[in-house]
Amino acid sequence: MPFINENFLLENKVAKDLYARAAEGCPIVDFHNHLPVRDLCEDRKYPDIGTLWVCSDPYKHRAMRLMGLDERLISGAASPKEKFDAWCRTVPALVGNPLFHWSCLEMKRFFGIDEIPSEAGADRLWAHCNNLLKEDGFSMGALLRKTGVRKATTSDDLLDDTSLHREASQVSGIEISPSLRADSILALNPSWQERLSPEEDSLDAFLEAVSLRLDTFAGNGCRLSDHALDNGFVFKATSRERASWLFRKRDRMDRSEKAELFSYLLEWLGRQYAVRGWVMQLHIGAERWTSTRLRRIAGATGGYACPGSGTDLSSLCRFLDAMDRDGGMPKVILYTLNPADNAALATLTGSFSESGVQKIKFGPAWWFNDHFYGIEENLEVISSYSLLSQSLGMTTDSRNVLSFSRHEYFRRILCNWLGTKVARGHFPKDPDLLEDLVKDICYQNANRWIYGE
Amino acid sequence: MPFINENFLLENKVAKDLYARAAEGCPIVDFHNHLPVRDLCEDRKYPDIGTLWVCSDPYKHRAMRLMGLDERLISGAASPKEKFDAWCRTVPALVGNPLFHWSCLEMKRFFGIDEIPSEAGADRLWAHCNNLLKEDGFSMGALLRKTGVRKATTSDDLLDDTSLHREASQVSGIEISPSLRADSILALNPSWQERLSPEEDSLDAFLEAVSLRLDTFAGNGCRLSDHALDNGFVFKATSRERASWLFRKRDRMDRSEKAELFSYLLEWLGRQYAVRGWVMQLHIGAERWTSTRLRRIAGATGGYACPGSGTDLSSLCRFLDAMDRDGGMPKVILYTLNPADNAALATLTGSFSESGVQKIKFGPAWWFNDHFYGIEENLEVISSYSLLSQSLGMTTDSRNVLSFSRHEYFRRILCNWLGTKVARGHFPKDPDLLEDLVKDICYQNANRWIYGE
Amino acid sequence: MPFINENFLLENKVAKDLYARAAEGCPIVDFHNHLPVRDLCEDRKYPDIGTLWVCSDPYKHRAMRLMGLDERLISGAASPKEKFDAWCRTVPALVGNPLFHWSCLEMKRFFGIDEIPSEAGADRLWAHCNNLLKEDGFSMGALLRKTGVRKATTSDDLLDDTSLHREASQVSGIEISPSLRADSILALNPSWQERLSPEEDSLDAFLEAVSLRLDTFAGNGCRLSDHALDNGFVFKATSRERASWLFRKRDRMDRSEKAELFSYLLEWLGRQYAVRGWVMQLHIGAERWTSTRLRRIAGATGGYACPGSGTDLSSLCRFLDAMDRDGGMPKVILYTLNPADNAALATLTGSFSESGVQKIKFGPAWWFNDHFYGIEENLEVISSYSLLSQSLGMTTDSRNVLSFSRHEYFRRILCNWLGTKVARGHFPKDPDLLEDLVKDICYQNANRWIYGE
Repeated sequence: MPFINENFLLENKVAKDLYARAAEGCPIVDFHNHLPVRDLCEDRKYPDIGTLWVCSDPYKHRAMRLMGLDERLISGAASPKEKFDAWCRTVPALVGNPLFHWSCLEMKRFFGIDEIPSEAGADRLWAHCNNLLKEDGFSMGALLRKTGVRKATTSDDLLDDTSLHREASQVSGIEISPSLRADSILALNPSWQERLSPEEDSLDAFLEAVSLRLDTFAGNGCRLSDHALDNGFVFKATSRERASWLFRKRDRMDRSEKAELFSYLLEWLGRQYAVRGWVMQLHIGAERWTSTRLRRIAGATGGYACPGSGTDLSSLCRFLDAMDRDGGMPKVILYTLNPADNAALATLTGSFSESGVQKIKFGPAWWFNDHFYGIEENLEVISSYSLLSQSLGMTTDSRNVLSFSRHEYFRRILCNWLGTKVARGHFPKDPDLLEDLVKDICYQNANRWIYGE
Repeated sequence: MPFINENFLLENKVAKDLYARAAEGCPIVDFHNHLPVRDLCEDRKYPDIGTLWVCSDPYKHRAMRLMGLDERLISGAASPKEKFDAWCRTVPALVGNPLFHWSCLEMKRFFGIDEIPSEAGADRLWAHCNNLLKEDGFSMGALLRKTGVRKATTSDDLLDDTSLHREASQVSGIEISPSLRADSILALNPSWQERLSPEEDSLDAFLEAVSLRLDTFAGNGCRLSDHALDNGFVFKATSRERASWLFRKRDRMDRSEKAELFSYLLEWLGRQYAVRGWVMQLHIGAERWTSTRLRRIAGATGGYACPGSGTDLSSLCRFLDAMDRDGGMPKVILYTLNPADNAALATLTGSFSESGVQKIKFGPAWWFNDHFYGIEENLEVISSYSLLSQSLGMTTDSRNVLSFSRHEYFRRILCNWLGTKVARGHFPKDPDLLEDLVKDICYQNANRWIYGE
Repeated sequence: MPFINENFLLENKVAKDLYARAAEGCPIVDFHNHLPVRDLCEDRKYPDIGTLWVCSDPYKHRAMRLMGLDERLISGAASPKEKFDAWCRTVPALVGNPLFHWSCLEMKRFFGIDEIPSEAGADRLWAHCNNLLKEDGFSMGALLRKTGVRKATTSDDLLDDTSLHREASQVSGIEISPSLRADSILALNPSWQERLSPEEDSLDAFLEAVSLRLDTFAGNGCRLSDHALDNGFVFKATSRERASWLFRKRDRMDRSEKAELFSYLLEWLGRQYAVRGWVMQLHIGAERWTSTRLRRIAGATGGYACPGSGTDLSSLCRFLDAMDRDGGMPKVILYTLNPADNAALATLTGSFSESGVQKIKFGPAWWFNDHFYGIEENLEVISSYSLLSQSLGMTTDSRNVLSFSRHEYFRRILCNWLGTKVARGHFPKDPDLLEDLVKDICYQNANRWIYGE
């Protein structure tokens, strides 16, 4: 029996039935990813499996570094074939790591491969996949459609052209919408002020220009924004007057002043999202400054981050409360990179509310936590400290179309988790209730709560 | 088979036997709750199931907020019937949350209901329960006696009348004793000084008056106190002289001075408890300041708190050590709201000791952690980092008589956890040892260590 | 069937086969322990089982304190027999705690005892074990050889005589090597400067002398060092000039200056290890200052520590990055006492790398975490956030030869964990792959990565 078989991760009958009846055919909505919208517009084709699968995947690079491979084979000058070979050599050493499951699942679902990638099979795999990649059914859009995705939201900078998303939707047959990656606004890159409000260097003019851009995003179908609250985030309530003054001296702020201006802008943006009915995603707790040397060699997106020391819950509450006091808080999704904060953040979902609106949700297991163990922990924590039936399921946060098979991975884990709970007598053995629950988590909740559909 | 059946949560024969032989009939001692003692004295009867079950339960309110219900149906002006209906509508969406289990268990044990509450059954349930509530067997005392509780300790402010507890015991047939909720002493409410030591505004006079009140509590059977060490707690060793000076300027202290006076009073109180043989409960790590708006709408006891960022272990050690240095440390129970601190605090139980006395215990899974997953984690952590055989089992921390069925919930989880460990070969298959263990955890340890019986 | 039987902790056939074929006969390399090297040279014999097993074991002392025993029976003047009796009385109350498993396993493996120690059997056990301890097969070396240990590395102060290790190897037939316990260098004990560089009191002279000692260690086979980064550790980048100035005023440094000089020395030592190809072990997060009273009574090594509040991940990254920037970072093993940091530290292993070298590993479950639950969590975390196939297995960190049976304990847990994963379909059912994996984790990885063999 192949490793990826129809019962993969499904350990009892309830789990298998749930998966087959409620999860397998359920459409996918992926509300946060980094798909390149231009590639979607062009319905990109891939020259080889190395380029598609290995060359630009920071998860795989990380694993190859953990194996002590030469950086040349990772981010360096080696050819796609060499990098592919290096990756195939690595796979058998990944047993236990999510990359092992993902790799087997991706080979199976997109290329029909049952074999576990390895040094011995690398050449065969290379030829087989490259042959398929020449076919029509293997363009970017075709690969995406294979996964069952119906709706996907990319992550876009304020200055990006979000009018492309309509075209991407038409080409791919998938509803592609933009979302705002707001970090560069808060980074206060000097050139931004010049590009956004060239005529007047003031906070008022800057925010006015940002507001107009937000309107453009909204007009192009944007429903979400996304902020990184990295390790060390502190919220300091700041008046408009003081923020204006800080904005003028923005090149000469000390650490505490930076936190003040950051806080002001963060709150201002949150209120803008609330007005527009957007969801504000908070990706909390990454420590992004690790190896300076590696960053120099392999670039900023190499995935060297690690979880920080844990969220300052008090600051987070003050930030949310600042918006909430007068009803200016948007819907919020909390993600954390440090799973030690799972229970605290899941509990926080019940601390803010508004009549008729679910205000805060605890998001899917994020980044390094997106594996069997992390997903089960995420389900357990949401279930125990918040409400499973209202949860948002899975999103890939990925640049790569093959990663969309991780929705299947999530759904198998979800159905198995539920099947086990039913077998233990924790959930009622009520197929209708359970199937509705699975569909809500996998699709309806995100579709309704985020997209209003 | 009904959802709550005799094997609910019991997955193997050892578990079932243990529950039947050792846990089911074992008396209950609930050493920390918020039962209203005046209601016990009057043997209160309830006008309807909405009033008893829904209207004043912050756990349920929180869940209804997570569902996005209108605040009118939660803490607002809606009638008990409307609130009850809203709650019944909510229950099926709670699968996975402890409130689902608790609600089913409460309906079954007190009202003989096998049906899972839902919109469809709300009217039927309302009529059925209200009919029963008119009967004699459904007064406050009668409901409590149904759970098997033999001893219950309420939480009382320093100025409360603890002479009522004797009457409450006589009326209910249950040993009701007071315990000191000491937070208002440390809050230094100005009126307190006036009420306690009207003739002299000094720390000496204030503490002298507090000490007399402690004697009154002791005379009325008090054996425990309770302190909230909220998120941000810092211990600063402070001399009596400085504390006296701070007390005089108590309305004009900065943050650091407040921490000093708080520390002094906390240590002083701990020493007072030690002298009187009381147990000092430390409820650690809540972040109570979340939504200001919600607090204004629905009051301070609405349950909007969430876990804080984790305990300052160093401060906690300094506080305990300050009392312990000269033998002035009372027995202590540590609770934490943030489960990320479980292992650290459970380990701390072994860091202080005294010949012939178990000095610190890690308490039951507290508040938001009081669910299947949290209780299993609590057992696992106490077992691995401290001593399971010396642990204190369960306490409800609740205002509501129906919550006392959670002792059954805990005991089923405990017996099942042990049964699973036996099946896996981690515990010896020795019925006598296991039954004694269950009785000690469920009853004897608290009875002996707290009440000295 | 005795409690410790051949299938102890092995729950399915895959687990049993894996243990029998790959783990049971696999040699042991214990890369971090506190075996007394002089005792090894003398092939010490033990006067009685109390002295060998109870009198100097801080784990057991801690458990006896948790039971409330009189300190006289723990660290006090009681005889070895009295202490042994007290311990036997304690064992049945330890069910669920690792000490229960360890005690049963030690009695079984070294003394052939199937009975669970208890008050009733104490005299019989005392006589039986003491008789055996007179025999030749029960000297220190003989006991060690019974466990299958092939290589063991002790922990040695900079001023210790590491030439003894060669003799210890010859006497015991086990490769005994030294490692550097570097804490006393960083503690800057004044007498150290005098002993190391009596002619000149300067940082230059001090470091020169330390460097020579490191060479001696290297010459005697040292491959590892070990640092405690206790609760509160902060890294502050410091220049050589400033460090020299701080060194001169080292008796009058404030807290912040101490952190600077500590940081400078830590980084300098790390670079020295890198040059010599050593592995730098970082034992992170202990809060060692708990009960002052207990420390006075029972000495500093009584084991009163507890986990601190969690690592400052940012400081840890800055420290590693400071060495890594110019390629001066040694191989590093991260250990944490607070399991809430497990995921963060396991993830950090992928944030630093060097072509051809695995740079950071997450170490075994340390100290209070070294139990069934902690080991499974350790495996799960390494597997999900790092790479299981590259992990270092187990080390005892112990002073006691009997503790070496904990390698068996670890291996049973490992094989059972893998067997369960295979049964659940998470790992491929591939005996060759799994057996190689077990051998790598139990032996080869440490042998290769640390000792270069």
